[in-house]
Amino acid sequence: MPTHPLDAATALRAETGAPGTFTGHGSAAYWNMVGPYGGITAATLLRAVLQHPQVLGEPVALTVNYAGALTEGPFTVQATPVRTNRSTQHWTLSILQAGPDGAPLVTTTATAVTAVRRETWRMADVPMPDVPPPGAVPVLPVPEQGMAWLHRYEMRPISGGLPQRWDGSGEHSRTRLWMRDAPPRPLDFCALAALADAFFPRVWLRRARRVPAGTVSITIYFHASGAQLRDTGAGHVLGQASAQEFRHGFFDHTAQLWNSAGLMLATSHQIVYFKE
Amino acid sequence: MPTHPLDAATALRAETGAPGTFTGHGSAAYWNMVGPYGGITAATLLRAVLQHPQVLGEPVALTVNYAGALTEGPFTVQATPVRTNRSTQHWTLSILQAGPDGAPLVTTTATAVTAVRRETWRMADVPMPDVPPPGAVPVLPVPEQGMAWLHRYEMRPISGGLPQRWDGSGEHSRTRLWMRDAPPRPLDFCALAALADAFFPRVWLRRARRVPAGTVSITIYFHASGAQLRDTGAGHVLGQASAQEFRHGFFDHTAQLWNSAGLMLATSHQIVYFKE
Repeated sequence: MPTHPLDAATALRAETGAPGTFTGHGSAAYWNMVGPYGGITAATLLRAVLQHPQVLGEPVALTVNYAGALTEGPFTVQATPVRTNRSTQHWTLSILQAGPDGAPLVTTTATAVTAVRRETWRMADVPMPDVPPPGAVPVLPVPEQGMAWLHRYEMRPISGGLPQRWDGSGEHSRTRLWMRDAPPRPLDFCALAALADAFFPRVWLRRARRVPAGTVSITIYFHASGAQLRDTGAGHVLGQASAQEFRHGFFDHTAQLWNSAGLMLATSHQIVYFKE
Repeated sequence: MPTHPLDAATALRAETGAPGTFTGHGSAAYWNMVGPYGGITAATLLRAVLQHPQVLGEPVALTVNYAGALTEGPFTVQATPVRTNRSTQHWTLSILQAGPDGAPLVTTTATAVTAVRRETWRMADVPMPDVPPPGAVPVLPVPEQGMAWLHRYEMRPISGGLPQRWDGSGEHSRTRLWMRDAPPRPLDFCALAALADAFFPRVWLRRARRVPAGTVSITIYFHASGAQLRDTGAGHVLGQASAQEFRHGFFDHTAQLWNSAGLMLATSHQIVYFKE
């Protein structure tokens, strides 16, 4: 079986004799406007945690800060478990890449929390909205010349899709869509982290105007266990995102991701730069 | 004028010859169950950024991870501007404190983004809910023996207050309240960061059951400029928080904070550990 594009893009080689240091490569297959798709960077950082020999438990929280664009060249991930408690572990992460003069530049910083999950009382306070099943929603065609990363996802917009006309007529900022990897791939924490960043900028929808925009910082809270992700398999994930406040060149959005059985897999928030 | 408790609790001394290294002290005035109130730790970290001689602009995002409890002794804050762009700056932060054997332990990790704010298109997609004004809502009395940090805030619960009976009858997880520092203090970024963590655990409200709970990671997005915070002065802030998902010993909540004029000051999210 050929390697799935997501696994190729997030592949890391552990450096001998330097625990927690990994080498990866910017991935053309997930290219966005001026660098790799932010979701694939988040997935790569999480993969470094999961490949670390000292990892405890499963991902609970991940925050990724996009400090500068990555190029297609090699980069270094440093993943450090700075504090390990009985059932939780705290991580600091960074990506470094040679800058124009060859000196290493920090392109990305991150923190993560992993934990041993156990059964407790449970409650879903944001139930999955009532939407048509994936098969009843047409796949969004991606034009041949569309950005590479868009070809790596199957998206089925239910509501709040890309505006039909960029005429300033936007009325709200909420998108709902079914999505999954293309080609389909069994869901795991890395793929879920990548999916959490798949929403186009809320400012485009709210204004029906395409202005330059880019994620500055994203936080993902993982609610599903690894076993629950395996149960989800290669099925579709329902994503919902809506903005909260646009001001001073930044806006934030909140997002939820459920599997098609209605189980909340992750919640996410991000703050995004926009121009004008 | 005496120093306000918030300023005393977040006071930092810059270490000579070690840029970005500061010394502080655990504050009894903001003591919580097993350490200082998490909001005061967030405020202290932000203060380190704002006191750093190289800071660019104003806070936009702050994520704080609570790795271990602080004691009342001295601690060290390290604040490093790892990447400075034209109008944004990325920070990594940590707090270290001597552990039982005297060796330094990481108690807290954090990342922050600061930026030069500029005027752009703006839109409030989550308008302030219609609530009675602060003067029409009684102040929640704090019992003499209540935790110290509760005495540092004036809270006026509008809805979703602490359950009257801990009888398992909870029906929702949304709290709305007016709040401000006690004694009143002009709002700034540090005070706002501290306020963002002032919500009691959603699991208590949802279950009407008091189980051990503690914040693992909080993210705050600042939407107000410093000038807008100054305009808010010592006025009340409306806080709203509601949970999303409770499972496997963790739940998350989303929160919004407005000033009494209806201006969104900050949005926040956190993931919280709970027992059973």
